[in-house]
Amino acid sequence: MKVGIVGIGHGRFGRRDDCTVQELAFEPFKEALEDCELEKKDIDATVIGSSPEYHKQRSISGVIAEYLGMNPQPTWLTEAACASGSAAIRTAYGLIKGGVHDVVAVLGVQKMLELSTPEILALMGRVGDVQWESIFGTTFPGYYAMYANRHMYEYGTKPEHLAMVAVKNHEYGAMNPKALFQKAITLDKAMKSEMVAYPLRLFDCCANADGAACLILANEEKAKKISDTPVWIAASATASATMSILRRETLTSLPSAVEASRQAYKMAGIGPNDVDVADVHDCFTIAEIMAYEDLGFCEKGKGGKFIEEGQSKIGGKIPINVDGGLKSKGHPVGATGTSMAVEMVKQLRGEAGKRQISGAEVGLTHNVGGIGQYCFVHVFRR
Amino acid sequence: MKVGIVGIGHGRFGRRDDCTVQELAFEPFKEALEDCELEKKDIDATVIGSSPEYHKQRSISGVIAEYLGMNPQPTWLTEAACASGSAAIRTAYGLIKGGVHDVVAVLGVQKMLELSTPEILALMGRVGDVQWESIFGTTFPGYYAMYANRHMYEYGTKPEHLAMVAVKNHEYGAMNPKALFQKAITLDKAMKSEMVAYPLRLFDCCANADGAACLILANEEKAKKISDTPVWIAASATASATMSILRRETLTSLPSAVEASRQAYKMAGIGPNDVDVADVHDCFTIAEIMAYEDLGFCEKGKGGKFIEEGQSKIGGKIPINVDGGLKSKGHPVGATGTSMAVEMVKQLRGEAGKRQISGAEVGLTHNVGGIGQYCFVHVFRR
Repeated sequence: MKVGIVGIGHGRFGRRDDCTVQELAFEPFKEALEDCELEKKDIDATVIGSSPEYHKQRSISGVIAEYLGMNPQPTWLTEAACASGSAAIRTAYGLIKGGVHDVVAVLGVQKMLELSTPEILALMGRVGDVQWESIFGTTFPGYYAMYANRHMYEYGTKPEHLAMVAVKNHEYGAMNPKALFQKAITLDKAMKSEMVAYPLRLFDCCANADGAACLILANEEKAKKISDTPVWIAASATASATMSILRRETLTSLPSAVEASRQAYKMAGIGPNDVDVADVHDCFTIAEIMAYEDLGFCEKGKGGKFIEEGQSKIGGKIPINVDGGLKSKGHPVGATGTSMAVEMVKQLRGEAGKRQISGAEVGLTHNVGGIGQYCFVHVFRR
Repeated sequence: MKVGIVGIGHGRFGRRDDCTVQELAFEPFKEALEDCELEKKDIDATVIGSSPEYHKQRSISGVIAEYLGMNPQPTWLTEAACASGSAAIRTAYGLIKGGVHDVVAVLGVQKMLELSTPEILALMGRVGDVQWESIFGTTFPGYYAMYANRHMYEYGTKPEHLAMVAVKNHEYGAMNPKALFQKAITLDKAMKSEMVAYPLRLFDCCANADGAACLILANEEKAKKISDTPVWIAASATASATMSILRRETLTSLPSAVEASRQAYKMAGIGPNDVDVADVHDCFTIAEIMAYEDLGFCEKGKGGKFIEEGQSKIGGKIPINVDGGLKSKGHPVGATGTSMAVEMVKQLRGEAGKRQISGAEVGLTHNVGGIGQYCFVHVFRR
């Protein structure tokens, strides 16, 4: 049985001291219901994608379901670090395919900025292996700096290549009214920004944010009734890799991304060249370059050249992160996976406005959890 | 498509300073694999049920999958407070029914005792509504004391009835080598124990614990091949209720439990009288009495009489918590739901030893999240 996306909603990403986590979740939920002209009573269950430790409120699905008016329908939360939103999509996908539910709301939501940056950094570090790594001081910029250094060493990738990813994503983020940063930057500005962890500078890092995004999923029969333009989930694939970076065989690739995309292409019956538009997990600019390679958009080691040639820009081979990416939208951990999927639905419906990829038929999302211990790849089709 | 349980494993519940969370998870996983004579390579995915905030290690599915040797297979975590283990069962159930995976390991795991009791109490309080309730000092014993007081006021339930639940569950816990407390207690001892929150005394409260329990789920075809005695999931039902206790219409019943059990009976095509054995969520003794009523094992308000008459004892109408319940096993939050299901599988296989219910064919689990904002009811059949 096919599973379709019939409704989408996307809140404003950024500092959201104006609302609680349940209010934050309400915005895109309401928008998604209006988008597909459904009412609350038409929704069978709510699956929340979130990383719980950032919130004062624990077990947030409870307050969210209550605030949305979704009692007594089922709700629970899925977590896979920065890929929690995609884990929620996959959970709902399974439930619908299995006939357990017909219509499910998937809500990625995260409120992080009640905490300070050092607190968030410390919490994030503990998404690395606590027993052997984070206890010695590894942080997320540190982990990704290791990837970047090794990529530079093995393939001659340059800091300029990293900066080009930032420039591209800020250019597109300027066209996304829901993004945290809606301002283009110059290569010079990126290259001269403050060093965070060599070679990653300030503009190589995405920003923490509050935010939420919602998808309404339905089984084939209902999807066709509800929507004239359902977007189908052609593949839901995921794989894991060791959490310990010290047990990885390579630092220039995420084995979970390679495996998940291999499965996704097989399931969707396509190859990388069939992808018209993609959102990839650019938590750091090096992560986007590695994604080009892991997803087979270019050869291994040629990611730097790919961005340099503009292949990931609108008009290039495969436009990537034309919604601004994590880099420019901000990265409210649990909301990122659903935000990516919302963009793909917009693109495939032809509703992406200034950043529309003309005639897009196949979209892909690549959502990484932690430092690559999880990767979820979804393929969407008109 | 039917979903069967082919393998089970259950670690020792209690203070487990001897191991990390991944080592804790390994014990029942290994036991479950041996139980059904499968190897790691036969398992398609690992779904973890846990409440993340108790652990120093964040995003524990990553370290667990690595430690179990389950990379690159998919893994993620599900959370629904004290019902996280049951949420994981339901997630795997959906994935298998939907044909997304054939064989899934469901691992409920929780390591709580790295924290002190006051720290745990504070964390648990935040599973109540933070905006309107826990911020004013509500704790879990306090919430359940409100339920108990109201039940006593409306139905004449007595502190003795509460104590009888404790006595029963400790009697059975003494027959469970995996339980935290393996010692019978007297009614007098329970009645004279320290007051925690009137009318709940020390022996009315379950204990925090570390622990893990594992189930191997498989689709019908594989289940029949793997096992001569698969136990089938005849129903997986769940419902939500408001998280705020102030928005509930009643304090003597959990609406989520009433709704989830109604659905479960319908799905399994049975009524309460068809249940041969059940594990219910006795986080506090009053919770077990409310469960008798919410599940329809007795009339509303007659829960006190039900325990007084020994109807929930072995030899009574429906033997309940014959593995000792949360009360005697301890309550490692995320592991509780899977622990309940492991007991039902043992009972339906006739492998429950001294506590075996002769000829049991239908088992039921009732796993409550938080103060009733979630309830999962599963029905199992031989």
